[in-house]
Amino acid sequence: MSFHVIHQDGQARVGRLTTAHRVIETPFFMPAATRATGKFITTDDYKNIGINSLISNALILSLKPGVEIVRQSGGLHKFMNFSGIIFTDCGGFQMSRTMFEKKSKNALHFRNPYNNQEVILTPKKIMEIELALDSDVAMMLDDMSSYGSSFEEAKEAMENTHRWGKESLDYHQKLRIERDSKQLLFGIIQGNFYPELREKSAQFISSLDFDGIAIGGVAIGEPKEKMYEAIDSALPFIPINKPRYVMGVGSPKEIIEMIGKGIDCFDSVYPAKMARHNHLFTKQGPIAIDKSQYATDFSPLEKNCKCPTCRQYTKAYLYHLTKIDEPSGKRLKTIHNLHFIKELIEEAKKAIKEKRFSEFQEEFEKNYQGKKKII
Amino acid sequence: MSFHVIHQDGQARVGRLTTAHRVIETPFFMPAATRATGKFITTDDYKNIGINSLISNALILSLKPGVEIVRQSGGLHKFMNFSGIIFTDCGGFQMSRTMFEKKSKNALHFRNPYNNQEVILTPKKIMEIELALDSDVAMMLDDMSSYGSSFEEAKEAMENTHRWGKESLDYHQKLRIERDSKQLLFGIIQGNFYPELREKSAQFISSLDFDGIAIGGVAIGEPKEKMYEAIDSALPFIPINKPRYVMGVGSPKEIIEMIGKGIDCFDSVYPAKMARHNHLFTKQGPIAIDKSQYATDFSPLEKNCKCPTCRQYTKAYLYHLTKIDEPSGKRLKTIHNLHFIKELIEEAKKAIKEKRFSEFQEEFEKNYQGKKKII
Repeated sequence: MSFHVIHQDGQARVGRLTTAHRVIETPFFMPAATRATGKFITTDDYKNIGINSLISNALILSLKPGVEIVRQSGGLHKFMNFSGIIFTDCGGFQMSRTMFEKKSKNALHFRNPYNNQEVILTPKKIMEIELALDSDVAMMLDDMSSYGSSFEEAKEAMENTHRWGKESLDYHQKLRIERDSKQLLFGIIQGNFYPELREKSAQFISSLDFDGIAIGGVAIGEPKEKMYEAIDSALPFIPINKPRYVMGVGSPKEIIEMIGKGIDCFDSVYPAKMARHNHLFTKQGPIAIDKSQYATDFSPLEKNCKCPTCRQYTKAYLYHLTKIDEPSGKRLKTIHNLHFIKELIEEAKKAIKEKRFSEFQEEFEKNYQGKKKII
Repeated sequence: MSFHVIHQDGQARVGRLTTAHRVIETPFFMPAATRATGKFITTDDYKNIGINSLISNALILSLKPGVEIVRQSGGLHKFMNFSGIIFTDCGGFQMSRTMFEKKSKNALHFRNPYNNQEVILTPKKIMEIELALDSDVAMMLDDMSSYGSSFEEAKEAMENTHRWGKESLDYHQKLRIERDSKQLLFGIIQGNFYPELREKSAQFISSLDFDGIAIGGVAIGEPKEKMYEAIDSALPFIPINKPRYVMGVGSPKEIIEMIGKGIDCFDSVYPAKMARHNHLFTKQGPIAIDKSQYATDFSPLEKNCKCPTCRQYTKAYLYHLTKIDEPSGKRLKTIHNLHFIKELIEEAKKAIKEKRFSEFQEEFEKNYQGKKKII
């Protein structure tokens, strides 16, 4: 068994996920290393701020540098020199106008942006790719319908997802044995924002022998209530002894809310994207570092923050780097936001262990005057 | 006295430059922190690779963030959190087509790119700015003629430089006393590529009570022989007990050649610019990391290199970051080239101390199959 719940406080929980060569405490957040690197930051930056989990995109990596090069280098951990947990996914690209072409019953069709050739991604092919990349956790190929899809469209995507899930799992189990791999495989629940489809999908995906269960197809532009409705419809059907992963979430507030619902795992480009757009997290909510009030503010972003940015630079300096549009400033800002999320989850875990999660959540929300998403 | 020669081997020498609060061993190289930051890298990166000297641009900083903000923050060291030696300069902008407008007998006229207003830079004004920035070493305002200037143009620029040098020095001495500052001031030799003007300028600038003597107006597009001729014409007239600074140099080979001539101090954007353009220094000469041969080269850039880039990443990974045009790759590449220069100078100093500089230089040049500048 690769996952154990160790502490429970209401629905919130602290667990331990064991992969082939690594162990990680849950809940955890995975910043993106889509192309085997962060944007403006590298894996050594991730390590320096204590991040021990990343998510890379298997489809993108299979196009560049190519699976064979990652394999030759000794796998994705060695390729990008990261010793923490790595998830690989291939998702979200149905939303890419530049890459997505069409879907069929058995595959997604993409256009390779590097050479303009067609890429046909099948459930089996993505299993081959993810196993060759040698990530700790592979995600199955899913079919995601966009926000606003009709019931019929949503149902069709869900049914594709279910069929592909079964096919992925069978093939992955076969490959795992053949190649003596201990890679884990997570299933993905779809169903758009139709509660009955979410229920059905959660039941089906949970009935299969996946190592963990993800809720996909949320945080794609829907109102927050819709997102929670979709998640709440699925959650009761996910076995409590499997790690639960909500894909594409999120903001500090959402992460704490999700932890309160018993979610164990998150990924999102949101904290890094916010940082690049000058919205920096603090315990009192995000601040817009490009506002002129910070030009002469010679204190750090957050008083007791231990991140390399706050330990070394003032708001006035970050304001300056922002105003001259210097890439190194984007790095410093990204480091702060990712460290903030990491520390926030550390505090949440501590609160769960001490059975005071709801007080922690209340206190956090009272202080965090978070505005709505600005991006 | 702020400078002492400690070791001598032929013309090459190791010395000690003492500023108000810092001591640095010479020869040393200053990477650019033109706008109070490197390009793609920050002062913590500089510190991590052992760089303890930087050069910032006083004119640029006076436009953004503005002198008052740097002064309020506690000076340039505090503003950008760098505890090493900082030089400030205002030079080179006569070459900027977007900024330079015209010159008069007593000033250079610029267009502020941020607000399109005219900036009139006089010798006194730049002294005010540099003192307020509180750099360790201020450079005088000089008038630089471009490569290809007529004798008359070159002579006029040199005469402006001499008049401005005298004016800068007198005013700086007055301000230093008034403000209880121990900032050093270096003079700048001009004279274009006319040996008789270079001689004359070296004699005049060296006759004034500057704390160090710089050779300016070289490495501006002239053939290498012309650069050496200009430097060789000036050198005999610079007192041996003053630090000698060749501005805008340079490549690994040029730096070693200059150290052999007894130069103590360098600055150049060349190593960082080369890195951003994928030309990475090794003991065997520069390599172009964007060449396909590196796609599957899983060794570091240089076998025994101690820089963070080589300790952590392979050529194949740097090739990948280059091919996806990722800014974090520019940072890693810049770190390597600047570390290379820093280590090269460390080795040169060691060779001087052990009285084997010419053997060291011969060995270095034999191994370093440097091509001509590609940028």
